[in-house]
Amino acid sequence: MTKTIFVLNGPNLNLLGTREPGVYGTVTMTSIEAASGTLASDLGYAIDFRQSNHEGTLIDWIQEAGQSACGIVINPAAYTHTSVALHDAIRAIAIPVIEIHLSNVHAREAFRSHSYISPVASGVICGFGLESYLLGIRALVSLLDTQVNAL
Amino acid sequence: MTKTIFVLNGPNLNLLGTREPGVYGTVTMTSIEAASGTLASDLGYAIDFRQSNHEGTLIDWIQEAGQSACGIVINPAAYTHTSVALHDAIRAIAIPVIEIHLSNVHAREAFRSHSYISPVASGVICGFGLESYLLGIRALVSLLDTQVNAL
Amino acid sequence: MTKTIFVLNGPNLNLLGTREPGVYGTVTMTSIEAASGTLASDLGYAIDFRQSNHEGTLIDWIQEAGQSACGIVINPAAYTHTSVALHDAIRAIAIPVIEIHLSNVHAREAFRSHSYISPVASGVICGFGLESYLLGIRALVSLLDTQVNAL
Amino acid sequence: MTKTIFVLNGPNLNLLGTREPGVYGTVTMTSIEAASGTLASDLGYAIDFRQSNHEGTLIDWIQEAGQSACGIVINPAAYTHTSVALHDAIRAIAIPVIEIHLSNVHAREAFRSHSYISPVASGVICGFGLESYLLGIRALVSLLDTQVNAL
Amino acid sequence: MTKTIFVLNGPNLNLLGTREPGVYGTVTMTSIEAASGTLASDLGYAIDFRQSNHEGTLIDWIQEAGQSACGIVINPAAYTHTSVALHDAIRAIAIPVIEIHLSNVHAREAFRSHSYISPVASGVICGFGLESYLLGIRALVSLLDTQVNAL
Amino acid sequence: MTKTIFVLNGPNLNLLGTREPGVYGTVTMTSIEAASGTLASDLGYAIDFRQSNHEGTLIDWIQEAGQSACGIVINPAAYTHTSVALHDAIRAIAIPVIEIHLSNVHAREAFRSHSYISPVASGVICGFGLESYLLGIRALVSLLDTQVNAL
Amino acid sequence: MTKTIFVLNGPNLNLLGTREPGVYGTVTMTSIEAASGTLASDLGYAIDFRQSNHEGTLIDWIQEAGQSACGIVINPAAYTHTSVALHDAIRAIAIPVIEIHLSNVHAREAFRSHSYISPVASGVICGFGLESYLLGIRALVSLLDTQVNAL
Amino acid sequence: MTKTIFVLNGPNLNLLGTREPGVYGTVTMTSIEAASGTLASDLGYAIDFRQSNHEGTLIDWIQEAGQSACGIVINPAAYTHTSVALHDAIRAIAIPVIEIHLSNVHAREAFRSHSYISPVASGVICGFGLESYLLGIRALVSLLDTQVNAL
Amino acid sequence: MTKTIFVLNGPNLNLLGTREPGVYGTVTMTSIEAASGTLASDLGYAIDFRQSNHEGTLIDWIQEAGQSACGIVINPAAYTHTSVALHDAIRAIAIPVIEIHLSNVHAREAFRSHSYISPVASGVICGFGLESYLLGIRALVSLLDTQVNAL
Amino acid sequence: MTKTIFVLNGPNLNLLGTREPGVYGTVTMTSIEAASGTLASDLGYAIDFRQSNHEGTLIDWIQEAGQSACGIVINPAAYTHTSVALHDAIRAIAIPVIEIHLSNVHAREAFRSHSYISPVASGVICGFGLESYLLGIRALVSLLDTQVNAL
Amino acid sequence: MTKTIFVLNGPNLNLLGTREPGVYGTVTMTSIEAASGTLASDLGYAIDFRQSNHEGTLIDWIQEAGQSACGIVINPAAYTHTSVALHDAIRAIAIPVIEIHLSNVHAREAFRSHSYISPVASGVICGFGLESYLLGIRALVSLLDTQVNAL
Amino acid sequence: MTKTIFVLNGPNLNLLGTREPGVYGTVTMTSIEAASGTLASDLGYAIDFRQSNHEGTLIDWIQEAGQSACGIVINPAAYTHTSVALHDAIRAIAIPVIEIHLSNVHAREAFRSHSYISPVASGVICGFGLESYLLGIRALVSLLDTQVNAL
Repeated sequence: MTKTIFVLNGPNLNLLGTREPGVYGTVTMTSIEAASGTLASDLGYAIDFRQSNHEGTLIDWIQEAGQSACGIVINPAAYTHTSVALHDAIRAIAIPVIEIHLSNVHAREAFRSHSYISPVASGVICGFGLESYLLGIRALVSLLDTQVNAL
Repeated sequence: MTKTIFVLNGPNLNLLGTREPGVYGTVTMTSIEAASGTLASDLGYAIDFRQSNHEGTLIDWIQEAGQSACGIVINPAAYTHTSVALHDAIRAIAIPVIEIHLSNVHAREAFRSHSYISPVASGVICGFGLESYLLGIRALVSLLDTQVNAL
Repeated sequence: MTKTIFVLNGPNLNLLGTREPGVYGTVTMTSIEAASGTLASDLGYAIDFRQSNHEGTLIDWIQEAGQSACGIVINPAAYTHTSVALHDAIRAIAIPVIEIHLSNVHAREAFRSHSYISPVASGVICGFGLESYLLGIRALVSLLDTQVNAL
Repeated sequence: MTKTIFVLNGPNLNLLGTREPGVYGTVTMTSIEAASGTLASDLGYAIDFRQSNHEGTLIDWIQEAGQSACGIVINPAAYTHTSVALHDAIRAIAIPVIEIHLSNVHAREAFRSHSYISPVASGVICGFGLESYLLGIRALVSLLDTQVNAL
Repeated sequence: MTKTIFVLNGPNLNLLGTREPGVYGTVTMTSIEAASGTLASDLGYAIDFRQSNHEGTLIDWIQEAGQSACGIVINPAAYTHTSVALHDAIRAIAIPVIEIHLSNVHAREAFRSHSYISPVASGVICGFGLESYLLGIRALVSLLDTQVNAL
Repeated sequence: MTKTIFVLNGPNLNLLGTREPGVYGTVTMTSIEAASGTLASDLGYAIDFRQSNHEGTLIDWIQEAGQSACGIVINPAAYTHTSVALHDAIRAIAIPVIEIHLSNVHAREAFRSHSYISPVASGVICGFGLESYLLGIRALVSLLDTQVNAL
Repeated sequence: MTKTIFVLNGPNLNLLGTREPGVYGTVTMTSIEAASGTLASDLGYAIDFRQSNHEGTLIDWIQEAGQSACGIVINPAAYTHTSVALHDAIRAIAIPVIEIHLSNVHAREAFRSHSYISPVASGVICGFGLESYLLGIRALVSLLDTQVNAL
Repeated sequence: MTKTIFVLNGPNLNLLGTREPGVYGTVTMTSIEAASGTLASDLGYAIDFRQSNHEGTLIDWIQEAGQSACGIVINPAAYTHTSVALHDAIRAIAIPVIEIHLSNVHAREAFRSHSYISPVASGVICGFGLESYLLGIRALVSLLDTQVNAL
Repeated sequence: MTKTIFVLNGPNLNLLGTREPGVYGTVTMTSIEAASGTLASDLGYAIDFRQSNHEGTLIDWIQEAGQSACGIVINPAAYTHTSVALHDAIRAIAIPVIEIHLSNVHAREAFRSHSYISPVASGVICGFGLESYLLGIRALVSLLDTQVNAL
Repeated sequence: MTKTIFVLNGPNLNLLGTREPGVYGTVTMTSIEAASGTLASDLGYAIDFRQSNHEGTLIDWIQEAGQSACGIVINPAAYTHTSVALHDAIRAIAIPVIEIHLSNVHAREAFRSHSYISPVASGVICGFGLESYLLGIRALVSLLDTQVNAL
Repeated sequence: MTKTIFVLNGPNLNLLGTREPGVYGTVTMTSIEAASGTLASDLGYAIDFRQSNHEGTLIDWIQEAGQSACGIVINPAAYTHTSVALHDAIRAIAIPVIEIHLSNVHAREAFRSHSYISPVASGVICGFGLESYLLGIRALVSLLDTQVNAL
Repeated sequence: MTKTIFVLNGPNLNLLGTREPGVYGTVTMTSIEAASGTLASDLGYAIDFRQSNHEGTLIDWIQEAGQSACGIVINPAAYTHTSVALHDAIRAIAIPVIEIHLSNVHAREAFRSHSYISPVASGVICGFGLESYLLGIRALVSLLDTQVNAL
């Protein structure tokens, strides 16, 4: 089994640190990627960290992960609430997927409380900023190690 | 009039055969393309068979078809339920469009029972697997031949 | 296995050709029965073509088909949208049922977009006028032949 | 043009006079038929007065009226609220249809405030008991005479 | 008992004959008042015919009618769908009120299918143009005469 | 007072034992009729056991029961969820009516959780298979005997 | 600061004492005005007591109060449930507004349970008949005296 | 297997006989306990009859029953409509649970027509007063005896 | 008649003064109890002032009040919006109940605008802080004194 | 054709500059009228600028405009969301109507996102303060000039 | 500050002039770009005019504008109604955004009446065809100039 | 600052390991408590681990934590979906609260997808079984340490 985790990021996350710091804080994609890489490395895994504003590109990457990764940590951002296509992409692959969010989506606008991704994710983590990524990686590794141990 | 039918396929259909075989069966895009081509040829038409995970690309292709094809058979997959843009693209062209689905969408999750495409399609066919494509081509050819005969 | 297909027609379809030609066209039940019979015969099947305005009679016929037919092509007309009893009748029998409609029900009044029949049908075809019947018979025969071949 | 008006009555109206007198009063079908016949006769028309508990029979009669009557006054009773099939039957014929109710349906349970019949009726009259029938006949005759005068 | 019937007309009805003739016809308030007066006179009653665009004025008139009229025929026009205040005014008086409409409101926009007036009216008549007023006067007189006869 | 109980059965119940045994079990109408008759006899009553797929026929029978039976045990099957006409028929008679269901309708599809019959029934019993009928007869007899004792 | 309280009354309250005594009791506007004046006087304030059936007039008075009164006690009656304009008028002024109702609106029709006024009122009191006015005046005076004391 | 049936009663049932006799009758908890005990004894079972106003206590008892009883007859009263926790408690145990109600909940306020308990109960009985308990015990014993006989 | 008023307080009110002072102010339960006691004493009544976080305990107290108090002033806090059991408890007793709230619940989250208590309370007062309790006691005493005077 | 534009303003707009400056800014009706007049004059038109809190008066003015103006720019304020009568008044006249709002209604309370006026307006402009009026006048003049040029 | 305005156009707008001329008119993207450029130039600004069928590309451009433009005029076309991602992109930048539409979206299908863009736009203009662009540029320039003047 | 974390568990969690192992797995409260204690200890904190079936007790404990703990990890189980009182309790205290669930609630019944707790929690974690608790403790400690470091 490959030891690579895809960490996928949806639309507008490239602006992190400049976009609505009141909601999202001042951390940047670069620092999240660094912290995620360090933690994954400590746990015996590597990460492949990507961001796109294009729904289709995220689908392409999920499919690619289904071939070459052991699991996905995804922050689908705005597509969380509108994308049946991401839902289907996740259902179509066999590796575990963890959904994360920087902010607590349940404490914001009503339209952010519904997720098309959650029903097909292994689990969901939201509200902890950069820490959401680290918890997501821990959760994923815990799942993967349990599977390996079960062999 | 051109005798080329565009057969357009939406997100995740490239995974067909591996994705949820319990729902979608084990047939692949390749075999569907082959069977569709053979039938179209028997009926005096050619097909241009494409798949994309990108909503924008599907819109580009629908617009292209409006210029260079005589009709469209489209399986919009997940975009069926969320894309007003595909709805508008179909309304913006003058050739007939047939909406098809591999599975019976009405027997699945509630969010799959609404289609933005159906109100602007000539007709809808769902639930017959690969056969949905063949029936869609027959339906389209029947429409086209009727139009020609009416001249 | 019997080679008889029941083609069942719901309320007001006996008026076809006189009723709202703008929506339903000028084709009549008689011509549909003839075309359906010819196609079925070409495919090695016979049809038993019936129409009733009575929900109870349609249920009786579905039950009868469960005993003496190999499949059903049904245009439930207005009962599509209101009849849980037809839904239950179809669930109670073991042969495949194809739901068809002359018009594209999704392009009409909102109350026509919900079908109690679709979730228990093998597949659904709508919008092609007389051709909907022919496509329905083809779809049914394809299903039946696949079942036979699978033995 | 025939001078016969069909006066059609839906389910449970045969019990009138015994059923819930607090809601429907003590008048009977027989007295309504008599009063309707007298008024119609005064206005130069005849009536054909019928009642059935069967939705399918009511559809049959509406179709029959389309052939042999000049208009319909219908009290669809409970089918008012559930029958798309009656809606379609009325749409399928070319003569005017007046919908009437004995009680004021808007002052009763919420499910009685929606009518599938009203959108396809020429007009609606409710709440006047036996008088609803007489007003319905007057309204219909007024429509018919206007049409004749317009020739 | 006074023998005066108030015939009250809501907003924009003063434009009748010029406003949307496709929906409302070419008859005017003046001709409706004349026809209503003639009929009422034939039936032994007088009418007091008024129109206002002001909800408050209509309430004032309903209260006045409660003191000095034997019944009301009201076409509340647009206030039908929005005025709880008219509903309350009608509940607050003891004389019968008949709600009428020129057009069949159930065959128009969805927001016209709900009436705050109907639950507190004796009965409702819609769809017959000028004839709606005449039928409303007949219905009211029939109610009043029945009450008198019951003494 | 007559000592006959009508036991009425709605659409598709004639198929019991063959229809979806996973949901409805393998008991048949014949065995239910026998067990019901035996229990009723033990309790001093006779039963008249009938089944129809026709809504109108069920209404006819409810009206007949209002004349010649002391109570009704009814399994309205699919008409439970769609028939205002059965609702009205039950309201129109003076004898007690017990609504029963073989399966626990509340544990199935959402559309089966609403009953038009329950608000006009004396009580409701569901989920016990054949035993639902026996409990329904006991409940009805208990009501009837209480009424007699109250004289 | 002026010591005048506006006590404003909405549509149909002028009929109090004659209108639906079962719901509203037999007290009249005159007796409410007297009791309110006495209490206000005891508390060191004067009242300006008004009633109108016109939404626009109520708005005019609220605006006037914003200039010349220290607070408002308002019984908006039917406009409670429909008037965004009253909502906006109250938002547009700086003095406190207390919403009161004679009856317990929450125990009546569903459409009376929503108030456009409550979100912009300081507080709401309902269900105590004439006493609602007196409690409203006490509540308002308590608010005003607290403000003064806070200076 | 233990032969003890828990009969559990929810909030306010301790007031039975004094609370709203028009809805619930004059029978008391004591008489229900006596009648239930006698019937259970006749059928070869004992009962443990309890009532609490506390949701948590009812959960404790359901869990206790899961250890020491053979089945539960529960009248959850008001918690029927609001308690997901009772729903979960019943799902968490392996013995059958019968839901009963004294009154016909479907003929009362709309909020009483939804039950969180029904989907996890074996069956539901409502509307028969004290008799609901006796029918519930019979239904439960029938289930239990069938299980024993199936061994 | 006893002259004791129960003043009951629901969950989290014990934190008053520390909890969200922006919404609820800095007054404490102790000061409310003192002010309530003083006012009640002035009006010739005593109070029994209690608070609990337990829904079941509040029900127990309401039932106790039904036996030993002349009325209840209750601030149900969060249970206002979720407790059918409190609704039933209040319906089950014969003494008047006044619902009060510190804050204006209609100006907060949407889920706070519905109350299960209001339809069974005599009246409702909200938005005046500590003053809500005092107004509630006045309203209750006014009701009680009126009843006494009516003897 | 007359060259006069009616600029109509709904309830509470007379308070502009004092009312909620955080939402509406500090501009006044007087300055809006002046700026509108200057622009209209530059474009070759005159304005008739009016404000009323009365729905009926606004209807009267719209009808007057239909006779004596070439177009309307209307800020219906609160009546935007509740007035079917204004909707009907606009439909009843033949001149173009532009709907404007000072604030961006879509960024405020949910009940402000629905407009009864928009479907019958030529176009809608919101969110630009005083500039909304100027843009509305430009849009109207552009429409009018196009009509003239088309002659 | 840069003096460049991005004018962004969503899916299918490239077909303008050929697509549904009944709804959108015969003007083309080219002529809109020319007219917009001329007006912007007159007002002292330049435009960067772009169109894409890809949601992701529109997001990229909005982000680019946040870096290098002074404001955006956007016609999001079909993405107006479905794109939370565009909503987020606009929130993430600091320059003003004006939403425009060629047609009056409120006079079309119900699904076109909701916009995810409006709540984050400075203002909205719809219904004026090419003129909507010009008004949008004027509105934006007015906003920008006001900001400059405020320095 | 205290270094004690309250780990609170809602109704039926005491049955963990026996209750629906297909959904919740075979891990027990005891093992969760042990693993949580070990992790907390490693991170420099102690835990106080409790479970109750009583909503009121959970509120008591949250209030207690507000006094004597540095944070809460809570699995509210069924009360997640129904308890406004827990929502209010959490709002009333000043320490951070993390909401966790064993299962992915978004992949279960619709009524489990709404949480009254999430909007007032710092963050939410669900779907990871025992690991959800460990991630919750990590998330909480990360928050607490950040706060300390920020001093």
